[in-house]
Amino acid sequence: ADDEDTFKILIATDIHLGYLEKDAIRGNDTFVTFDEIMKQAMQNEVDFVLLGGDLFHDNKPSRKTMHCCIEVMRKYCMGDRPIIFEILSDQAVNFSHSKFPWVNYLDTNLNISIPVFSVHGNHDDPTGTDGLCAIDLLSCAGLINHFGRSRSVEKLEISPVLLQKGNTRIALYGIGSVPDERLYRMFINNQVTMLRPREDEDGWFNLFVIHQNRSKHGATNYIPEQFLDDFLDLVVWGHEHECKIAPVRNEQQLFYVTQPGSSVITSLSPGEAVKKHIGLLRVKGKKMNLQKIPLQTIRQFFIQDVTLSEHPDLFRPEQPNVMLKVMAFCQEKVEEMLEEAERQRLGNPLTPEKPLIRLRVDYSGGFEVFNTMRFSQKFVDQVANPKDILHFIRHRESKDNIKECMDFEALLSRPTSEVLQLRVEDLVKEYFQTAEKVCILYMCVEDADQSLVNIPLSPLQTFHRIMRK
Amino acid sequence: ADDEDTFKILIATDIHLGYLEKDAIRGNDTFVTFDEIMKQAMQNEVDFVLLGGDLFHDNKPSRKTMHCCIEVMRKYCMGDRPIIFEILSDQAVNFSHSKFPWVNYLDTNLNISIPVFSVHGNHDDPTGTDGLCAIDLLSCAGLINHFGRSRSVEKLEISPVLLQKGNTRIALYGIGSVPDERLYRMFINNQVTMLRPREDEDGWFNLFVIHQNRSKHGATNYIPEQFLDDFLDLVVWGHEHECKIAPVRNEQQLFYVTQPGSSVITSLSPGEAVKKHIGLLRVKGKKMNLQKIPLQTIRQFFIQDVTLSEHPDLFRPEQPNVMLKVMAFCQEKVEEMLEEAERQRLGNPLTPEKPLIRLRVDYSGGFEVFNTMRFSQKFVDQVANPKDILHFIRHRESKDNIKECMDFEALLSRPTSEVLQLRVEDLVKEYFQTAEKVCILYMCVEDADQSLVNIPLSPLQTFHRIMRK
Repeated sequence: ADDEDTFKILIATDIHLGYLEKDAIRGNDTFVTFDEIMKQAMQNEVDFVLLGGDLFHDNKPSRKTMHCCIEVMRKYCMGDRPIIFEILSDQAVNFSHSKFPWVNYLDTNLNISIPVFSVHGNHDDPTGTDGLCAIDLLSCAGLINHFGRSRSVEKLEISPVLLQKGNTRIALYGIGSVPDERLYRMFINNQVTMLRPREDEDGWFNLFVIHQNRSKHGATNYIPEQFLDDFLDLVVWGHEHECKIAPVRNEQQLFYVTQPGSSVITSLSPGEAVKKHIGLLRVKGKKMNLQKIPLQTIRQFFIQDVTLSEHPDLFRPEQPNVMLKVMAFCQEKVEEMLEEAERQRLGNPLTPEKPLIRLRVDYSGGFEVFNTMRFSQKFVDQVANPKDILHFIRHRESKDNIKECMDFEALLSRPTSEVLQLRVEDLVKEYFQTAEKVCILYMCVEDADQSLVNIPLSPLQTFHRIMRK
Repeated sequence: ADDEDTFKILIATDIHLGYLEKDAIRGNDTFVTFDEIMKQAMQNEVDFVLLGGDLFHDNKPSRKTMHCCIEVMRKYCMGDRPIIFEILSDQAVNFSHSKFPWVNYLDTNLNISIPVFSVHGNHDDPTGTDGLCAIDLLSCAGLINHFGRSRSVEKLEISPVLLQKGNTRIALYGIGSVPDERLYRMFINNQVTMLRPREDEDGWFNLFVIHQNRSKHGATNYIPEQFLDDFLDLVVWGHEHECKIAPVRNEQQLFYVTQPGSSVITSLSPGEAVKKHIGLLRVKGKKMNLQKIPLQTIRQFFIQDVTLSEHPDLFRPEQPNVMLKVMAFCQEKVEEMLEEAERQRLGNPLTPEKPLIRLRVDYSGGFEVFNTMRFSQKFVDQVANPKDILHFIRHRESKDNIKECMDFEALLSRPTSEVLQLRVEDLVKEYFQTAEKVCILYMCVEDADQSLVNIPLSPLQTFHRIMRK
């Protein structure tokens, strides 16, 4: 029940305003969906909106993108609805980098009805000598509260924004995007500190927003969940585009993780085909509930994989005219997806007309590729991505890549499954135990690119490097 | 006296935010001066600020520039001081291009204490398919009122912003920067209409803001004052950087023209060496008074011309070591200017430390130029423009250029002095009288570049063109 003790928070991330803004078909998708998200915030009368980074797709958004963003925020975030939660922390600390270091809704010159809190993502991170990012313009104009920002590259000390509504108190932590290797190293070196309120330490709901790789892209190119403090209650994970918004319990750290996912499809991969949602988070005391809100304006995306060698009854590589047969087969698959898209779309007037379609064709086993441009011509008026419907893949190659990566990890004597169960303390302990061996590896790689470990190196390259030392 | 019937308006133009922002010495000049200007507005408790265009130097201002601009505007334009003038015109017409088509101080969500009205200049004019300009971002954020905008390239119909304070009523007209040739043609074709209030037509103080060439750069590459309607009371002329802020009466049209000039020195020419001011305009009924406010934060600029051939007692071209003598002479001149700068600067703590220095050396008569970079090395710590202190000129060449230009005008049988006394009606009449001859000339030139008359053509080129027809 929405009572005076219940915080209502709209959670969204990776809105990527301006993505493909020059595309004749998809150009307005991000603006339309941002409008939908903020309208949901207004209709649900949330206390605030919490964004997980990458509000903008480009570090330097175009004038049109900035204009659309400002328009939507002024439209939905300003108004007379009163705000009934307090800020207990020192705002000058929480927003120390801002020219107006206080939360926008307490500025007497601005009539804010929905405050928006956001960390920055890797797409809209601070750059240049002034260390400004795109959301700093919004912050300066009083439209957003940019938090979770640090100037140090060695050390993070996170002062939470402390919020109170009735008897519920939230400690809001955030880390704006940092290169994964750097943040990984800071965690390993015990240089990430989350400050906790002195008063009634256990009486707070601890909410943390992070914008990093969650899935493992390499040994240190992601942030393992077990790095995060176990006093947290809920982690909102930005950056990952697949919608996994239902909170998942980390059984080791005993917190929950919600991954809202992006609100626009930026790659035609299976993760982006998952139905997209934003979250309506309710927090009362230490209890929470997260309601999924499906987004209505998302462009449909259908993806299907076919393996040509699995259909020997239809075609074989040595047959004459095999290519025509394969083309007809692919065409049929695309048409099936288009029909399914049309059926689903009829139920929702907000869905854009043309879907995204991707057919991944595994042509290993002696088949040949054909001209995808010519193939796509047939669908030019029906799909939103006529230029890249078909994608030819060869299964064996990708297996090889994975194998090479695994071999490299074996060198570090730390298999994937093991790492996932380690905690920071264990990693540090192990670090010193295997210091000699690891040091050599670290040193030689650090030489090259200043990062702790550089994953794209093959085992052979690594050996060569070690030998040279 | 500042009473309830007196409008107080701060007038400034060509602030060029971001000009040379990457220069280590001059990088912050425009931001500092913009702060000074807005502070003056606050301290003088003006009713509003009126800007004449080119608030930004770059069409796409950098993040830093936008951030500085938003910061200054939020700092000075927001607050509790009440605004005591009304808007009588239809704001949806005045601000029809805006997503929030009303004046910012009437928006209940914004607590504006100083509204800023601005036209755009040629540096910050609308571009792209969306027709947005940099000040539209400020307008969308509620920080500025962008007026005087038109989408047509053929025709201008200007609806004034009608303002009333006590018994004083102002009709505020504006035209955002338009290419001079195009606007010239529109005037000639009678396509510029200034609408007048139906009620009590003569009871208004008619104030007009324009951002065009005022000085004649070519036959149609400027806007003659007599093109403007004679019902106007005061014209605020932007774009021209020389400060000629004291209103000058146009004896033919019976209006006054004030040219505030830029608030930053963007070229090291004599016009920019004139002391820079902004204006405090008071309007009561049909009477006005313009008080000059000298700007304190302007970087000093000293410019001096020397003609080497005028000093035969000091050096002659044929002497040995003449170059060393000339260098010593120039060095002395620069040192004189530096001393004078230092003397003047001591009186004003807001003046930037290093002055701009320009010595123009006419070396005609057989003298040779020397390495200006080496010369400048001596002053690298004392001047703000060490790279271009010296400028070598040869007087004869520039005379030739002027002559050629004049000859071309003679072809059009319309000498400069005559044009300046013509009014639009006369020009139209003359146009038809000399239609045959002029038509040929117009046609052939229009072919080339779509503009009515193309001045850079030499008389010879023009003759060739006519012969070809």
